[in-house]
This record gives sequence, structure tokens and C-alpha cells, in this order.
Amino acid sequence: MIIVKIGGAKNIDFDNIAQDLKNIDDQIILVHGASKTRDEIADNLGHPAKTVVSPSGVSSVFTDEKALEIFLMAYCGLVNKQIVAGLQRNGINAVGLSGIDGRLWEGKRKDLTLVKEGDKVKVMRGNHTGKIEKINKNLIEVLLDANYVPVVSAPGISYEGEIINTDNDTATTLMALALGARKIVSLFEAPGLLKDVNDPKSLIKEIAKEKIQDYFEFAKDRMMKKIMSAEKALNKGVKAVYFGDVRVQNPVTNALTGKGTIIK
Amino acid sequence: MIIVKIGGAKNIDFDNIAQDLKNIDDQIILVHGASKTRDEIADNLGHPAKTVVSPSGVSSVFTDEKALEIFLMAYCGLVNKQIVAGLQRNGINAVGLSGIDGRLWEGKRKDLTLVKEGDKVKVMRGNHTGKIEKINKNLIEVLLDANYVPVVSAPGISYEGEIINTDNDTATTLMALALGARKIVSLFEAPGLLKDVNDPKSLIKEIAKEKIQDYFEFAKDRMMKKIMSAEKALNKGVKAVYFGDVRVQNPVTNALTGKGTIIK
Repeated sequence: MIIVKIGGAKNIDFDNIAQDLKNIDDQIILVHGASKTRDEIADNLGHPAKTVVSPSGVSSVFTDEKALEIFLMAYCGLVNKQIVAGLQRNGINAVGLSGIDGRLWEGKRKDLTLVKEGDKVKVMRGNHTGKIEKINKNLIEVLLDANYVPVVSAPGISYEGEIINTDNDTATTLMALALGARKIVSLFEAPGLLKDVNDPKSLIKEIAKEKIQDYFEFAKDRMMKKIMSAEKALNKGVKAVYFGDVRVQNPVTNALTGKGTIIK
Repeated sequence: MIIVKIGGAKNIDFDNIAQDLKNIDDQIILVHGASKTRDEIADNLGHPAKTVVSPSGVSSVFTDEKALEIFLMAYCGLVNKQIVAGLQRNGINAVGLSGIDGRLWEGKRKDLTLVKEGDKVKVMRGNHTGKIEKINKNLIEVLLDANYVPVVSAPGISYEGEIINTDNDTATTLMALALGARKIVSLFEAPGLLKDVNDPKSLIKEIAKEKIQDYFEFAKDRMMKKIMSAEKALNKGVKAVYFGDVRVQNPVTNALTGKGTIIK
């Protein structure tokens, strides 16, 4: 089983990805983002994403009720169904899911958020976010057994049944571990992990999992989450994590055959 | 098996519906609309629904590309997932689907639309709409067998893999026939079929299916589609169609026990 995770960029060529997936003789689960589409809809609705800073200086998005609605529209509505249609058009029998469906991605809501504003720290309530702790894998297994390709995205659901915004990287790792997936392919708009983010030729081809922390210095912004998720996955039983470029032809095969960064 | 269809009104109390569904000892499929939410998002995005009139005088929505995107956001994103979370919160293991997933609702795209403008008739291209002709029931059967409650909405998918806007009533009837459902419960914001749309006391309690055409005169606007779909369903094997009020407590049981309009 291979989990293929695709970032939230716009204009991803899903016909290209679908054609490539047909080359792969293994069970596949696709996980996708939609952050660019989400931001665009949010701007168009006059409700741009609200970023807050924690007392320790970490930035994050504050998901108020309206932001959660926009999240659902972008991730579960527009992007998920366009991907499913794209796969279907290319002969792949895809089914779109969120972490809410069948309580696939379950965890704790984090309603309260500590926010630093100037010198003051204040508590903000009403954050529809949380941390996924539990994968209810039955739904995925049922679909894979019936030869469907699950196409999954955030959000998830709290134990109390509230919808919670969550990041795909952590949930993807947990899902890989729960299902016993041996490979995770993570595709984004870069050739892989770069020593110099501005120089595509500085690609790091291979990382031994024992040495992964030596490479943290090259991981900027969202890349840091990807590499930390990779470390966790590899330490708990996933055989290899592949970073690769979503923009090239046959992007999944490309990553699997070592054209990006392999961590194992 | 019972198919419960819920109209596209806003502020439907899904906790109430979920509590009621727990009383029902049968396999359930939920089908929902989202037209009010769709119209609201469309207005907020500055792209209100475009209505056109056919040469024979029938009004319909013209689904251009932007309108289709808004349709996906509203139906498959916001409303579908809020219903699934609402059911999950009440202990019902729901899974949200569109007609695209697993090609559940498949049919012909109707790209060209004849439109009357004043005295002229012109052809408009680019309508993302179509007619569902085929139900690929496997996905629903797989989920029902695994004890999930499928929550389904438009749009559907064309044979060529394009997303097509379609009305839920026709697709619901086809789905009932394909799956051998014996009962269809259709809930909306009225007590049932009324002789006088302004007088809730004018409720028609029972209609024999042989006499159904005698009641067409009482069916205004969208009600006409519901009653014509009911006729088709009953003529092809569904045992009874129940119209009922979505706003009351235990709305499904209420309809099933004859508090609305029964057609059989």
C-alpha cells in the first residue's frame, strides 16, 4: 500500500497524476491539500485567513466558524470532487472522503488558543481546530477491498463530533501507520528537499532515517512539518518516504524511482 | 431499505433527524439538497445563479463553470460534511458522497442549451448540467454492508467524466429502483402536499398511485418534480412514497406513520 500526498497548490494536473497512478501495481490512497484554493475563496468572500502567534512565537491559522465553513467548501467540496472527477475521467475508480466521514480522522478539539499580541498574552475561544489521535481505518479498508481508490482530505472530527481543522501531514502519517502502508509519497512544487531553496540543483537525493535530524536545517516553513512527519512514520514502521515534484510527468513514479528525495 | 430525501432549505435540524433515524430498524440512505446555501454563497461571491428560459417557457439554472464550482462548495463541501458531522455526533456512522464518487450517478452531459431571449432563440454552450441515466450501486452496497449510512448529494458525472449538475429528485428515484428500496421519504418545509399551498390544514393525507395524476394540479414549482418522481418510482417497484415536514420532531417517523402525504 502506498499513500500519495499532494500539497495544496493550484493548477495541479490530475490527469497527469491519474495516468501515472495506472502504472502502479499496489493499493493507493491519495491525500490532498487545498490551502491555495481555500485562501482564494476566503479572500473572495471577504474573510481572509486569520493568523495568530503563540506565546512561543509560532504562527498558525485561527479557524473561526466562518473559516471552517470556507475550509469545508474548498477541501471537501471544490478540490476533493474535482480530483475525484479527474481520476474517474482517467479510469481510476476514486471515492472522495474527509476525515469526518466514518470518523476516519478522530481527535481532540483545541478550542482555546493562547495568542501573543504585542507584550500581552490573551486566550481566544472558538478555534475549530484540533489534533488527530485516532484513525478509524475500517472505511478505508472496506473501500480498498472493493477496489476503490480513496481520496482523502482534512478536516477531521473530534470525539464529541465537532469538525476540526487539522494538518494533513500528521494525519497522513497516522493513517499510514494504522493501515500498515509501507511507502509514503509526498508531492509538492519543488524537486524534493533542497539544500538551497532557491537552487533546484541542490537536491538532496537520499537521507538515511538515522541521520534525518541533520537535515532539519534545510527544511523551511511547511517542509519542516513534512520532514518531521516522515521521521515519525519511518520510526514507527513505514519503509520509505519519497519527496517529489508534482509538476513533472509521471510524478509518483518519478519520486518512487529516486528522482526526488528518498528517506529510508 | 428506506431512502430519506431532504430539501435544500437552511437551518435544518440534523440532530433532530439523526435522533429520529436511530428509531428506524432498516437500512437508510440519506439524500440532501443545498440550494439555499448554494444561492447564498453565489450571492456572496458576486456570481448569483443565472436563470434561463427555454423556447417552451420552462425556467432553469444555467450552470457555467463558476456556478459549478459554487455548487461543489455548497453541496459536497459545506452542507454534506455538516450533515455527516451532525449524524456522527448523534451516533450514526455516516459517510458523505456525491454522485461523482464511484460514478454513483452517471449520465449524459447537456452542454448546449436553447435559450429564449425576447423573440429570439439562441444556443448557449458551456452548461455543466446533465441527465442521470445510470446508478453504479456498488459503492452504496459496499457501504451499507459495512453498516455505514451513505449521505448523498448532487452533482453527478457524465460518461466522459465531466461533473454535471443534476436534480436530486430524478437521481433519488433511479437510485431507489437500482437498489430495490421499498420506501422513499421526502422531507421539506411543508406538512406534505397541500390543496392550498397557503393553508397547512389543506393537507392531502393519502394518494392512490393510480390516481396520482389527479393531484398534479396541487403541485406548484418544485413540488411538481417531486410528485412526478414519486409516480415514476411507484410505477417501477417502490412500495410507497412519503412526503413530510422536515421542521417537526421525529420528521422521518412522522412521515412514515402518515402525518404527511402517503402515495402508494
